[in-house]
Amino acid sequence: MAFSPRALSVEWVPERPGGLWPGRVRILDQTKLPAEVDFIDATTTEQVWEAIRSLRVRGAPAIGIAAAMGAAMAAGQAADRGAVTVGVLAALASAADTLSTARPTAVNLFWALDRMRCAARENSALAATELAERLAAEAQAIRDEDAAMCRAIGEHGATLLKDGDSVLTHCNAGGLATAEFGTALAPVYVAAEQGKRISVYADETRPLLQGARLTAWELMHAGVDVTLICDSMAAHVMKERRVDVVFVGADRIAANGDAANKIGTYGVALLARAHGIPFYVLAPTSTFDLATPNGAAIPIEERAAEEVTEGFGRRTAPGGVRVYSPAFDVTPAEIITGIICEKGIFPPKEAMVRRG
Amino acid sequence: MAFSPRALSVEWVPERPGGLWPGRVRILDQTKLPAEVDFIDATTTEQVWEAIRSLRVRGAPAIGIAAAMGAAMAAGQAADRGAVTVGVLAALASAADTLSTARPTAVNLFWALDRMRCAARENSALAATELAERLAAEAQAIRDEDAAMCRAIGEHGATLLKDGDSVLTHCNAGGLATAEFGTALAPVYVAAEQGKRISVYADETRPLLQGARLTAWELMHAGVDVTLICDSMAAHVMKERRVDVVFVGADRIAANGDAANKIGTYGVALLARAHGIPFYVLAPTSTFDLATPNGAAIPIEERAAEEVTEGFGRRTAPGGVRVYSPAFDVTPAEIITGIICEKGIFPPKEAMVRRG
Repeated sequence: MAFSPRALSVEWVPERPGGLWPGRVRILDQTKLPAEVDFIDATTTEQVWEAIRSLRVRGAPAIGIAAAMGAAMAAGQAADRGAVTVGVLAALASAADTLSTARPTAVNLFWALDRMRCAARENSALAATELAERLAAEAQAIRDEDAAMCRAIGEHGATLLKDGDSVLTHCNAGGLATAEFGTALAPVYVAAEQGKRISVYADETRPLLQGARLTAWELMHAGVDVTLICDSMAAHVMKERRVDVVFVGADRIAANGDAANKIGTYGVALLARAHGIPFYVLAPTSTFDLATPNGAAIPIEERAAEEVTEGFGRRTAPGGVRVYSPAFDVTPAEIITGIICEKGIFPPKEAMVRRG
Repeated sequence: MAFSPRALSVEWVPERPGGLWPGRVRILDQTKLPAEVDFIDATTTEQVWEAIRSLRVRGAPAIGIAAAMGAAMAAGQAADRGAVTVGVLAALASAADTLSTARPTAVNLFWALDRMRCAARENSALAATELAERLAAEAQAIRDEDAAMCRAIGEHGATLLKDGDSVLTHCNAGGLATAEFGTALAPVYVAAEQGKRISVYADETRPLLQGARLTAWELMHAGVDVTLICDSMAAHVMKERRVDVVFVGADRIAANGDAANKIGTYGVALLARAHGIPFYVLAPTSTFDLATPNGAAIPIEERAAEEVTEGFGRRTAPGGVRVYSPAFDVTPAEIITGIICEKGIFPPKEAMVRRG
């Protein structure tokens, strides 16, 4: 396989051989995709903050990794300037405080920065240079664990794919949103590694076109056979028996197995059911939310009208037209064939208890 | 009602007072909507062909009217150049042959041109100038009959609407697609005339955004309460019980009641069924095609990849990505609640025999 998804979205780059610190954070600028493949070599906390803020790096896991690496970078630079341990701790705390303001609702951002703060506290007896190395290793571990989780999801999901199968997906829950393989696309990459020929239909995913801009790009770069369709074409594609299975990601899975994901996912699930095509939600167990009893309790964000009316660089709807633009929808557990997490494949209603 | 849809989409403009011929074909360039209201005064068969081919005029009835007028224009110009009857007949036949190649799927195109050919045959004993006048009158009659047909469809459909109802529609089967009231939108206009408050959810209808550009524009101009959504949002909107009924047009209805319409219509029909929302196809009987036994026999045009990847001023997908872009899909009769034509409202399987 031509694809090397390792550290595609965000990567730690040591400045010198022989150690992890000091280092910089290399971020693939996803706002320039698919026209341009451009990396930002961030050397300041502000650069990482801006990259998260401006969606240059997006996808909850990738945001968390970028923030953790940004904090580790600040700590390493302090040690490199000759700071003692308290100086390194202060640099990490300051960077983490700054980075936590980059996006208001991304849970992984806060989780990853808290984990870096804990690692700092637990290692505050170390010398400055050892602490810097330890913090860089912690950020790298967050990345590696995410990659392992994605691979596990991929290995479970790949058992559902046979040579020649075709997958339909919506939005981007691929390597660009995580450290490596992604969630919804992970089985495709694993199956490709196993030598299976898998093709993908990618919904373009209006209004923000993550499918066209990101999923199609990522799969093409991986050498995976991908065909782009408009969201409105999914039903016809299914009727023509071009699709064997649907794989989508999730932003939150409620206790009863209802799954919130990008707007349009619920429609795809209904269409899959109407055609007898299995529909799977792929997400790490960190996406499961026991505190949310069911989908009705998941708040649905509404997005700005302009994303619909002038999302292609010029206005495509009459001025002043009313727009309704929910960012997410909820797919009821009843029409989800299974939830695939790093622990295995479960019926939606059992996923919460069987996640271990 | 503020809306004056008369002759908005396509209009016959006589060159001189005192007679219909010679004339030109005035076409509202719908590719420029909603930014600009611009008319093309076509004086050649090629201009009319190009306008149909490039969707400057679109919607099955309007295409048929434009083609009929284009053929009449060629006949009138021949007579104006001093041709004798056989020359006028030859000009009409040549123009009709050319125009019939403009779009492959729209049955109204072939129907309207056949009607012009019949009118020519039946009047081949007339002098050239009388024949030219007769052919211009025939094209105008096709337009006037369409307008009357749309109103009849609207009156039947309006009996399904009560004050406060909300209609979801896909693509544009409104006044812009016909001579006047349209088909799918005709009941909305008639109900509005009757004083009912009706609101409409308009699918934007990718790839060419006829819903955003045309339906939203047309309804706003008519003073109808319209809300624009992305195609991927229809399922969520239905789940939220925001829609009472779905009205769509048709490009061709097969003998068994299967209906071909803009890509995405079939998906909307499945979503409506899943939510228990009635789904009606609105089309004149000229859309019924006895020669087509069922939907599987309807050829589905494939459109260029660029309409999906760079339709709106900038490229939104990776270069070289494969695209599958069927222009139409087929909704099986089984999931159509009823077909509304100028004769009444019929179960899809009976529409063909009961059209009278």
